[in-house]
Amino acid sequence: MGLYTRAMASATSHQAPKGTRDFYPRDMAIRRHIEGAWRHASIIHGFEEIDGPTFEHLSLYTVKSGEGIVNELFSFRRAGGEDDYALRPEFTPTLARMVAARAGGLPQPIKWFAIPTHFRAERPQRGRLREFIQWNVDMVGVEGPQAEVDVLSTAIVALERLGLAPSDVRVKLSHRGVVAAGLRALGVDATRLADAFTLLDRRDRLEPKEFEARALAIGLSAMALERLGDLAKTKLPIDSDADKIAQALGCGSEEANPLAELVRRLRDAGLGAWCDIDFGIVRGLAYYTGSVFEIHEASGAERAIAGGGRYDKLIEMFGAPPMPAVGFGMGDVVLGLVLKDRGKLPADDGESLLPRTDVFLISAGAEFADQLLAQLAAQMRRAGLHVRHTYKSTRNVGKLLSEAGKCRARFAVILGAELEQGMVALKDLDANVQTLVPVAEIVSKVASASAI
Amino acid sequence: MGLYTRAMASATSHQAPKGTRDFYPRDMAIRRHIEGAWRHASIIHGFEEIDGPTFEHLSLYTVKSGEGIVNELFSFRRAGGEDDYALRPEFTPTLARMVAARAGGLPQPIKWFAIPTHFRAERPQRGRLREFIQWNVDMVGVEGPQAEVDVLSTAIVALERLGLAPSDVRVKLSHRGVVAAGLRALGVDATRLADAFTLLDRRDRLEPKEFEARALAIGLSAMALERLGDLAKTKLPIDSDADKIAQALGCGSEEANPLAELVRRLRDAGLGAWCDIDFGIVRGLAYYTGSVFEIHEASGAERAIAGGGRYDKLIEMFGAPPMPAVGFGMGDVVLGLVLKDRGKLPADDGESLLPRTDVFLISAGAEFADQLLAQLAAQMRRAGLHVRHTYKSTRNVGKLLSEAGKCRARFAVILGAELEQGMVALKDLDANVQTLVPVAEIVSKVASASAI
Repeated sequence: MGLYTRAMASATSHQAPKGTRDFYPRDMAIRRHIEGAWRHASIIHGFEEIDGPTFEHLSLYTVKSGEGIVNELFSFRRAGGEDDYALRPEFTPTLARMVAARAGGLPQPIKWFAIPTHFRAERPQRGRLREFIQWNVDMVGVEGPQAEVDVLSTAIVALERLGLAPSDVRVKLSHRGVVAAGLRALGVDATRLADAFTLLDRRDRLEPKEFEARALAIGLSAMALERLGDLAKTKLPIDSDADKIAQALGCGSEEANPLAELVRRLRDAGLGAWCDIDFGIVRGLAYYTGSVFEIHEASGAERAIAGGGRYDKLIEMFGAPPMPAVGFGMGDVVLGLVLKDRGKLPADDGESLLPRTDVFLISAGAEFADQLLAQLAAQMRRAGLHVRHTYKSTRNVGKLLSEAGKCRARFAVILGAELEQGMVALKDLDANVQTLVPVAEIVSKVASASAI
Repeated sequence: MGLYTRAMASATSHQAPKGTRDFYPRDMAIRRHIEGAWRHASIIHGFEEIDGPTFEHLSLYTVKSGEGIVNELFSFRRAGGEDDYALRPEFTPTLARMVAARAGGLPQPIKWFAIPTHFRAERPQRGRLREFIQWNVDMVGVEGPQAEVDVLSTAIVALERLGLAPSDVRVKLSHRGVVAAGLRALGVDATRLADAFTLLDRRDRLEPKEFEARALAIGLSAMALERLGDLAKTKLPIDSDADKIAQALGCGSEEANPLAELVRRLRDAGLGAWCDIDFGIVRGLAYYTGSVFEIHEASGAERAIAGGGRYDKLIEMFGAPPMPAVGFGMGDVVLGLVLKDRGKLPADDGESLLPRTDVFLISAGAEFADQLLAQLAAQMRRAGLHVRHTYKSTRNVGKLLSEAGKCRARFAVILGAELEQGMVALKDLDANVQTLVPVAEIVSKVASASAI
């Protein structure tokens, strides 16, 4: 390395790229806490973990989202290479590619989850970063609502494990097929349903005049337009049956059945308390074909915690046979904000989520004690114990006990003058009780005490 | 999405980018198995987990490695942005940046580990991919050899946990300061030591004539040159004392002390059986300042499993105060090959590493049984059990038991005709024993049986 580079280096204060994060130990402990809840909920629902490359061929992302997505991606080429790549902005294209590559050989249903990092070249803002972690849960190969129930149960069990209750977060459910019946009843032609959904989705972002003009363009009368506005605000309790849903949408009971059946099964699974029917939930993406849902902080603070739904026509676009599918994504950024807002993260910024030290070894004697310390540390670690010791030269037991306290050790073992009698001191730092233990017994003694 | 894009999509068979990997569930189970051993070993040695951004400012990588590294990186800009970024090729610059950003506020020693993904724009080959996972373990703030011992113990405990023994892998140790004394004794001027190390490192990649010419250029006589060749092949047992090391290097005992002290402490910690002194270990990178080590498969097959050493002058180059440091990196690709070569991965391609299903629920009755199944599934999952059921409409118990077997369930619970007496059948699928259990007791019964 040249002197010039070195001078540059010390002159520059290096920063993490805008919209990305450094995870120091406490930040990482919080991240692992969240990921642990995600992983646990996934596994007990029978989902298996997968992952793919951090970057994909750029063309993989234009399949689903068209060329318009390219500006939202971080894309690049290898120096001297010819292929265009992009950092993955979402997981579904990778999942679809992986299903397509082995479609014949995978037992169905395919129940996969992933906890990858994703990237979006957007302006960073609250709840939205350029790099974030997103839990993806997908079930491929099941048509019926039992797939939705298991996927939603997975999300809810994870949120519950993180300390959230139905008073903190709400699962808002709708169903495109059922809402389509309502839209047809309002006079929307079958060929304009996609436009009507887009309109419904963008209602809050369009000027009233623009909204009205677009509504008229797809054949809505002034009265129907008003009813469309009402529809977007319609929420129904989770115990609504097909008749009630049909009444709210102005469609037939038969047409309301898919949503009624879904909410009935959610109630059977004991998830009713978390869920509402909300016809304002559309999900912008055109690829949803049935149920759609979002999870929100109960008061409406923050962006959506999660979003998903059924996408029965998407997998085949990536070269697989036609396969029904349902899934959701839940990012770590908004969820982290909600957990903080709701007081569900430790008040110590994550310190209590760090693994606790089982035993802090203290050599207060001569060179023999140092050798014994090295041996005990190795034996205790082989027994699975989390062992620390000082790297300082001090033999001051008071100072060393204070160091043990700082790394939240449960026990200290002091190798001191009692070694002449073949004994060491075992101090329970929580109870502040000290006993003498024969050297030959100290490993098993600490191992059994730590297992409590 | 336009029809054109759709047609393109179905016509194209999408592939993962060259040199990257898709992790299907079994592949992922093996990856998590390796990462789990890494994480466990790190934690019991008192290291705390961190992470940083997947990409950094490109300039962060030229600090340490100069402009030469740029061609080995995947680098990019955001559309419309001005900053140059690169996918991280290694973790040390991120670690140094994170230390520098909080140098004053971090308690020392700083003991961090990370398991990030890394990227190199090289030609993929056996043991070398474009995206790989690398375990990084670093201790910052400790000068003495105890830091090396704990760092090496961490590596060894992880390898041992993965089933490897000293007959499978060898830790090869050297020490640049001590070898420098040997080089000086051979007649290498203090100002040419760096060149001599480079020569030593590249000895196998240089033509003999080229090697000789370079050796002469740094002042080595023909005899000294021969001795340099011998030096590179010199291995000493781990119980060598300073005199033995000095004799092998032709330097003074005092000069050999740092390496002698390190191996003595490794023996004290019970790690001697894993380690050899090997003066052929140099580590190409110029920033190592003391100990250097590599871990290799015992027969010399495959590339190095891990490499590291002491880098006391590096952290300050990133704007932190001067801080001694030692650490290593261990990638998942070579380690995975060695585990496979040595028969330390399950013969079933990872299936037995997947989480086992605790209970498979079977509804063999009417609608009431389906409702009960949904309730029991929810209760059992709340008890932490891994629960599955079919998504098919069949009520054929034989077929459903076969499905339970395919997902390696330990128990099946059959909701059938006995429900009329308030009973369900509990089948232990390992023991092939079936009993009747009251519905009210089935959750606790399965929970306690699964806990065994």
